[in-house]
Amino acid sequence: MATLNKLKIFNDPIYGFISVPNSLLYDLIEHPYFQRLRRISQMGVSYLVYPGAHHTRFHHALGAMHMMQKAVQVLRFKNVEISDEEENALYVAILLHDIGHGPYSHAMERSIVEGVHHEEISLFFMNRLNEEFEGKLSLAIKIFKGEYHRKFMLQLISSQLDMDRMDYLKRDSFYSGVAEGNINSERLIQMINVENDVLVVEEKGVYSVEMFIVARRLMYWQAYLHKTSVCAELIMMRVLKRAKELANRGVELWGSAPLLFFLKNVINEAEFDQKALDFFALLDDSDIIGALKSWQFHDDFVLSELSKMIINRELLKIEFIVEKNSKDRLNEMRHKILEKYPISKEEAKYFVFQGKVRNQAYTKSEEPIRILKKNREVVDVLEASDQLNLKALSKPVTKYFVCYPKYVFES
Amino acid sequence: MATLNKLKIFNDPIYGFISVPNSLLYDLIEHPYFQRLRRISQMGVSYLVYPGAHHTRFHHALGAMHMMQKAVQVLRFKNVEISDEEENALYVAILLHDIGHGPYSHAMERSIVEGVHHEEISLFFMNRLNEEFEGKLSLAIKIFKGEYHRKFMLQLISSQLDMDRMDYLKRDSFYSGVAEGNINSERLIQMINVENDVLVVEEKGVYSVEMFIVARRLMYWQAYLHKTSVCAELIMMRVLKRAKELANRGVELWGSAPLLFFLKNVINEAEFDQKALDFFALLDDSDIIGALKSWQFHDDFVLSELSKMIINRELLKIEFIVEKNSKDRLNEMRHKILEKYPISKEEAKYFVFQGKVRNQAYTKSEEPIRILKKNREVVDVLEASDQLNLKALSKPVTKYFVCYPKYVFES
Amino acid sequence: MATLNKLKIFNDPIYGFISVPNSLLYDLIEHPYFQRLRRISQMGVSYLVYPGAHHTRFHHALGAMHMMQKAVQVLRFKNVEISDEEENALYVAILLHDIGHGPYSHAMERSIVEGVHHEEISLFFMNRLNEEFEGKLSLAIKIFKGEYHRKFMLQLISSQLDMDRMDYLKRDSFYSGVAEGNINSERLIQMINVENDVLVVEEKGVYSVEMFIVARRLMYWQAYLHKTSVCAELIMMRVLKRAKELANRGVELWGSAPLLFFLKNVINEAEFDQKALDFFALLDDSDIIGALKSWQFHDDFVLSELSKMIINRELLKIEFIVEKNSKDRLNEMRHKILEKYPISKEEAKYFVFQGKVRNQAYTKSEEPIRILKKNREVVDVLEASDQLNLKALSKPVTKYFVCYPKYVFES
Amino acid sequence: MATLNKLKIFNDPIYGFISVPNSLLYDLIEHPYFQRLRRISQMGVSYLVYPGAHHTRFHHALGAMHMMQKAVQVLRFKNVEISDEEENALYVAILLHDIGHGPYSHAMERSIVEGVHHEEISLFFMNRLNEEFEGKLSLAIKIFKGEYHRKFMLQLISSQLDMDRMDYLKRDSFYSGVAEGNINSERLIQMINVENDVLVVEEKGVYSVEMFIVARRLMYWQAYLHKTSVCAELIMMRVLKRAKELANRGVELWGSAPLLFFLKNVINEAEFDQKALDFFALLDDSDIIGALKSWQFHDDFVLSELSKMIINRELLKIEFIVEKNSKDRLNEMRHKILEKYPISKEEAKYFVFQGKVRNQAYTKSEEPIRILKKNREVVDVLEASDQLNLKALSKPVTKYFVCYPKYVFES
Repeated sequence: MATLNKLKIFNDPIYGFISVPNSLLYDLIEHPYFQRLRRISQMGVSYLVYPGAHHTRFHHALGAMHMMQKAVQVLRFKNVEISDEEENALYVAILLHDIGHGPYSHAMERSIVEGVHHEEISLFFMNRLNEEFEGKLSLAIKIFKGEYHRKFMLQLISSQLDMDRMDYLKRDSFYSGVAEGNINSERLIQMINVENDVLVVEEKGVYSVEMFIVARRLMYWQAYLHKTSVCAELIMMRVLKRAKELANRGVELWGSAPLLFFLKNVINEAEFDQKALDFFALLDDSDIIGALKSWQFHDDFVLSELSKMIINRELLKIEFIVEKNSKDRLNEMRHKILEKYPISKEEAKYFVFQGKVRNQAYTKSEEPIRILKKNREVVDVLEASDQLNLKALSKPVTKYFVCYPKYVFES
Repeated sequence: MATLNKLKIFNDPIYGFISVPNSLLYDLIEHPYFQRLRRISQMGVSYLVYPGAHHTRFHHALGAMHMMQKAVQVLRFKNVEISDEEENALYVAILLHDIGHGPYSHAMERSIVEGVHHEEISLFFMNRLNEEFEGKLSLAIKIFKGEYHRKFMLQLISSQLDMDRMDYLKRDSFYSGVAEGNINSERLIQMINVENDVLVVEEKGVYSVEMFIVARRLMYWQAYLHKTSVCAELIMMRVLKRAKELANRGVELWGSAPLLFFLKNVINEAEFDQKALDFFALLDDSDIIGALKSWQFHDDFVLSELSKMIINRELLKIEFIVEKNSKDRLNEMRHKILEKYPISKEEAKYFVFQGKVRNQAYTKSEEPIRILKKNREVVDVLEASDQLNLKALSKPVTKYFVCYPKYVFES
Repeated sequence: MATLNKLKIFNDPIYGFISVPNSLLYDLIEHPYFQRLRRISQMGVSYLVYPGAHHTRFHHALGAMHMMQKAVQVLRFKNVEISDEEENALYVAILLHDIGHGPYSHAMERSIVEGVHHEEISLFFMNRLNEEFEGKLSLAIKIFKGEYHRKFMLQLISSQLDMDRMDYLKRDSFYSGVAEGNINSERLIQMINVENDVLVVEEKGVYSVEMFIVARRLMYWQAYLHKTSVCAELIMMRVLKRAKELANRGVELWGSAPLLFFLKNVINEAEFDQKALDFFALLDDSDIIGALKSWQFHDDFVLSELSKMIINRELLKIEFIVEKNSKDRLNEMRHKILEKYPISKEEAKYFVFQGKVRNQAYTKSEEPIRILKKNREVVDVLEASDQLNLKALSKPVTKYFVCYPKYVFES
Repeated sequence: MATLNKLKIFNDPIYGFISVPNSLLYDLIEHPYFQRLRRISQMGVSYLVYPGAHHTRFHHALGAMHMMQKAVQVLRFKNVEISDEEENALYVAILLHDIGHGPYSHAMERSIVEGVHHEEISLFFMNRLNEEFEGKLSLAIKIFKGEYHRKFMLQLISSQLDMDRMDYLKRDSFYSGVAEGNINSERLIQMINVENDVLVVEEKGVYSVEMFIVARRLMYWQAYLHKTSVCAELIMMRVLKRAKELANRGVELWGSAPLLFFLKNVINEAEFDQKALDFFALLDDSDIIGALKSWQFHDDFVLSELSKMIINRELLKIEFIVEKNSKDRLNEMRHKILEKYPISKEEAKYFVFQGKVRNQAYTKSEEPIRILKKNREVVDVLEASDQLNLKALSKPVTKYFVCYPKYVFES
C-alpha cells in the first residue's frame, strides 16, 4: 500500500502524463535538492522575449525522464538488452543531469560562480544524494561520468541526440510558442537502435534527423540566441558582476543569505566545498530577482541602472555588426554616455560593450549522430544524408554585436 | 517610423500571435506597473500540483486583450456599432482588469492586505495611470466601473461570459495540462452578439455555452480547488499571517522592503494610500518565495515549519469530510501534535484546521449568460437549454475538509 | 525475420503511432474484408456539413484497437490479470467490432438491407474469418457475444465507456473540427479499473466521466444529429428506397453488381446467406456515390432529383418544429409541390416528410458507467456525481422536424 | 437577409473556422463544378500508406482561400494597396486554382487524359464559370494567367511561397500524421511583404523560410514520394492504361459513363472540347475505385491482377536501386513471371518495371523566394541564408527503383 502512494503521475501538457517509474525515483523527486528546480526557469531571461517561457528545470527533468522511458521501451522491443538495474540508472541519470543548474546559470557561471560549470555541480549533488540513498545512485553516476562499459547509455544521456534534447527542444518550443522548433521526439525515438554498443538511428529516419538539426538551429537563432535575450542575459551577468565588485569593496548590499555568500566569497571549482554546495542548494530565481528589485534603488549608479533594465524591461539596444572590430565606435559611444551618466570610463563598459554569438547546428567532432544503414553499416549522419545540406549545417556561424543604451543616442 | 517600432507582436503558444493594437496599449504594456505582472504567477501555488502552471498574469492579460480584439471584430461584422474610442477603451479595460493582483493574492488578501480586494487595487492603478497618460484611460475606467451607458461593454469585461474567462480557462488548461478545461473560446466568440444593449449568445451556441460551463466547473474541481492546491494556499496564507503576527510583536524577520511594509503595517481599504500603492507596485512572487526560503531557518517553530512545507513541498495532509462539524476530531488532533511540537494550543491551529470549498458552475444571480433565440427573444441560458442539465449546474456544491500534518499520525 | 516484417506501425494524427501487436492482428488487417473499411466513411454524409469528416471505419477500428492496448496496459499495471490469450482476443474483438458496417449504413439499414443490423453482419464476418484462421478468433467471438465469463471484457468492447467510444468521439471531433467533442480518452483510460469483474472508473475520475458524457451529447447535437446531416441521410435513404422500388418494378438502373444484388433482392436477416455476405463484402461508398451520380440523369423524376440533392449538395430544407403533429402542414406542402413536380401524391412523400431525432447522453438502463468509490463500493455514475447534473443528462431529448424543398416555397 | 444566409462559415480542424468572404465566392463554392472536389482526394492513393489522408481538394481549396485572406490582411496592414476588386480576384483565383484536377490525377494524366495538364483544365473551368457569372471572374483569370500587371498577385497564387503551398503542406501533414511537415504558415504569412511589385519575406523570416523548405523536402520523401505511394500510383496508372488499351480493342468493360468516355476516346489538349469538359466535370474518385472493384473479376489477367492490387492493398514490391541501368535484372524478372502468369512478354512490363523519383526542395530557376533585407535590398533566399544549407537544398536528388510482384520471388 505504501508503494501505491508513490505511483505518482504528473500532468504534462506535452505528453499528457509523466509517470514516475519506481519509488527511488519518487524519493529523488521529493528531495529538496530536486524540488529547488521548480523555482529555476529553464530558459532564464527568455521570458522577456517570449512571455510564455516560464517553464522550469523541474518540468524539463521530468520530461527527459519520460523520453528515456520511451527510449528504453523502444530499444527493448528491438531486442537491445537492458537490465532492470541499468534501466533504473538511466532514469536516475537523466533526471539529475541538470540538478546543478543555478538560477540564470549562463549569467551566473560568468559572474558569481565563475569557472564552476553546472555539470560539475550536478555531479557534486549526485554524489551527495548517493550517500544519502546508500549507494543506489552508483551505476547512474558511473554512466553519467562515462565510466560504464556500455557506451550507448551515456549517449542516451549526453550526445547530439540525447533524451535531454528530445525534451528541451520540444518543451522550449511549446512554452515559448516558437512553433517551428517543435521536433517530433516520438518519431525520432521510435527509430533509434543500438549497433555495436553505439546509439544509432535507422536509415529511414534520416530525414527526421535532418529536420531535428534544422529545428535545433532555428531554436538557437530564434530563441536561445535571440538578440534581445542575449542582451538581457549580458545585462544580468553584468549586474551580478557589479554586485560582486561592490561586495568585495565592502559596500552594503541587500540580498538573501545564499546570494550574499556567493557575492562575498571567491568561489571556484577548487573551493566548491560542502558549505558552498549547501548554499548553492538554496539558490533560485527568486534570490536574483529579489535582489535586482532591491538594487534598483541602490546608490551605485551602475548597479541600479542595470537592475532596472531587467526589472522594467528597459534593455540596452543590441545591434548586429558585420565585423567584430569596432573599437573606435565603442569608444565613441562610451564617451557619449560619460556626458550623461555620473560614471567612470571603466564603468562605461557596463553600458557599452560588444560580443558574439555562435551557432553550430551539428558538430561532427562532438558525439555524432550515427545512422544505421540497411546493410547494418554505421555512418555519420553527414554521410548518410543525400546531399550537402547537413554538411552545410555543420559549419559554425558567428555573429557579432554591440550593446548600448538607446536613449543616449536619441536626440 | 516611430509608430512602426510600436507595432509589437507577442508570441503566444495558444493563439500564435498577439498583436498590440496601438501605441497607447503599447505604452501601458511597457509601464513598470504592467511589467510587474510578468513576475506574478496566474495560478499561484498550483504549480505544486501541475508543474507546467507557471504562466503569468502578464500573459493572461495580453491573451484577454486578444480575445477582446476578436470579440470587437465579430460584433462589428454583425453590425454592432463600436466607435474607435470605445474599441480602444475595451482593450485598455481588459488589459488592466487584473493589474491590482498581488503575488499569491488569494493567500495575501486573507492575511497581509486583509480586506483590500484586488479589483479595488486595479482601480487605484488605473486612476494613477490615467493621470500619467493625461486622461486617455477615462472611458476605460468608466466602463470598468459600470458607469458607461452601453452595458454590454462591461459584460465583455466582467460577466459570466467575459473575455477574461475566455482567456484564463483556456490558458490555465493549456499550461496545467488539464486538457478537459480547454474551452473553445474562438467558437464562443464567433457566436456572441448584442441585443438591446445586452451581450448575448446566438441560439445555436447553446451547447457550446453548456460545454463552457461544464468545463469551468471541471477546472474548479480539478485545478483551482484541487485539494492539494487548496491546502498549499491555506498554508501560504498561514505563513503570512504568522509573519505579520511576529512582526507586530517586534520579532526580527528577513524580507524585502515592500514585503516588510505590509507585514509591519495594518493595511486596509481605507488606509490604502499612495505609499501603500507604491510599495504594492513593487511586490511580486519573488518577495514571498524569497521570504519563505529565509524563514525556513527562523527560530519561530510555526513560521519555519510552515515555510518549509511550501518550499520543499512537504504539505499538510488534506482530507475531505462529510460534514463540517468535527470539532472533537480537530481537538484530538491538535492535542496529538502538542505532544510532538514545541508549540502552544493556540499555535496548534496553524497545523490542524478545517475549511470548505464551494463551486457554483453557473450563478443566475450574477451577470447571467443570455441566449438570443431565433425569434430575437433573449432568455437566460438556463431556460434555453433543452433539459435540466444547466439548472443542476447552477446549484452550488460545498465540500468540507480538514488539514493536518501526516507524519503525526503515522505509526 | 518474417515476423519482423509484420511489426507494422501506422501513422495516426491523433495518437502519433498505432502499432499492430502481433501477426494475427496483422493478417486480419491485411484481409480484404478489413481493407474494405478503408473505403467506408466513418461519418457517412457528414462531410456535407464538416468538410474534414472523411476519415474511415478502417482508421477508427485501428484507433479503437490502440485504445484497447492502453486499457490492457493500465489494467495490468493495477494488477488486473489478463492472460495473453485474453489480451489478444480483446484486440481482435475491438478491431472487428464494426466490420459489418456497409456504406452509409444508417441509410442502408433502413432501405436496401432493411432489418439487418450491422452488428449481426459483423458476427457473420467474424465467424467466416474464424474458419479461415482456424479457430484463432473463437475467444474474441465469445467475448463479443457476451458469452465469456469475465464480463468486464465485453464492457471494454461494448458499453457506455467502451474503447469504441474512446476512439470515435475523439476521432470524429478531430476530423470534423468540432473541437468541443475532443474527449480526453487518455485520462479516462488512466482511471479505469476492474472491481468484482465489472469495469469501473476510479472516484477521482468522476468529473472526467461527466465531461465525457456532456461532450458526447454535444457531438450528437452538433455532428451526428446536425440537422443538415440528418436531412442528407434521410434523402440518401429515400434514394436507395426509390431505387429498390424501381428495381422491383423492373426498371433498368445503372449500378455495380453488388449494389444491384441488394436492390433487386429482398434481403433480411433470415436470408442473409453466404452469397449475400460475399456481395456485401464488396460494397463500399463508391458503389453508392457512383450510382447516385449516374441516377442524376435517370428518367425517373424522384430518383434523379434526390440523387442530385446529394451529389450537388442542394439539399431539402429542414426545420425543427415544436410538436410532431403537423399533418395538415405536410399535406399542404405536398399539394404545393404537386403543382410544380411531375409526380404522384404518393411520390410527394419523397420530398416532404417529417421525422424526429432523439438524444440521450447517458442511459442508465443500458450498460451503465460505474464509479469505484474510495471505500471500494461500486455505484452508478449518476449517484456518484455531486449534483443533479448527470441525472438531467440521462433524460432523453426528442426533437421533431419537417423536410421540404426550399425552392418550392420561394416566391 | 438573403446575404445573411450566404455568410457561410466552414469548420476546419486546422484553422478553426474558414469564412466565405462574399456571395460570389459563396456561389462558386455551391456550384457543382466545385462541389465535385468534395469527392476527389487531395493525396490520391496515399491513404494506402497514411490511413488518415482522405482529405479532399475541396477542403484544400477552402484552406488556400483562407490563407489568402490572411495574406491580404497582413499586406494591407503593411500599407500594400489592394483594391476590393483585386482582393476578390485573389480569392477567386486561389479557390479555383485546382478545379481542373481529376481523380488520382497523377495517374490519370499519364494514362487516360494523357498530355492534358490539370492547370489547363482549371482554366477551361474558370472560363466556363466566367460566362455563367457574367464576367465576374475576369480579373481572377487575368491574374491566374500571369497577364495582370501587378506580378506579386500571381506569386501569391503560384510560386514557391504561394498560398497553395501554405495550405497543402500543412493540411497534408495534419491529415497524414507526418507531423514534421507541419509548417508554420501563420508565421510565414505574418512576414511577407511586397517590394517593387514583388512578393518578399522580411529578413527576420529567413529561418522560417529555410524551415519551410526543409519541411517541404521531408514531405516529399516521407509522403508524396513515399515508395509505397509511388508504387501504388504507378499501378493505378497501369490499370487505367490497360483499360484504355482493352477499350480500344473493343473489349467490354464495366464503368461509369464519364469514365468510359475517357477510356474509349483519345483525349488530348487539342481535342478537349465542351463535351470532354462536361464528362470531366462528372469524374471523381468513385468512378475509378468503382471500376477497379469491378475489374477485379474481369477476364483480362493484367487488368484484374492490377485492380486487385489497389483494392486489397496487395501491392507490388518496390526497391530503390543505385543506378538506373538494370535491364538485365528486369528481363530476368520478367522472364520469371512468365513462368507463373498467363501473359505475354509485352504484358510482363505491367508487372515488372523501373522508374525514378526526383525531389528538389527549392528551385532557383522557378519563381524564387525573395528576402527583403533591412536595407530594403531584395535578394534570393539562397543568398540571404547564412550558410550553404539552402544551396544544398537546391540541388535535385533523384532515386531509381524497380517494382515487381513479391510472391514471384518467394520460394
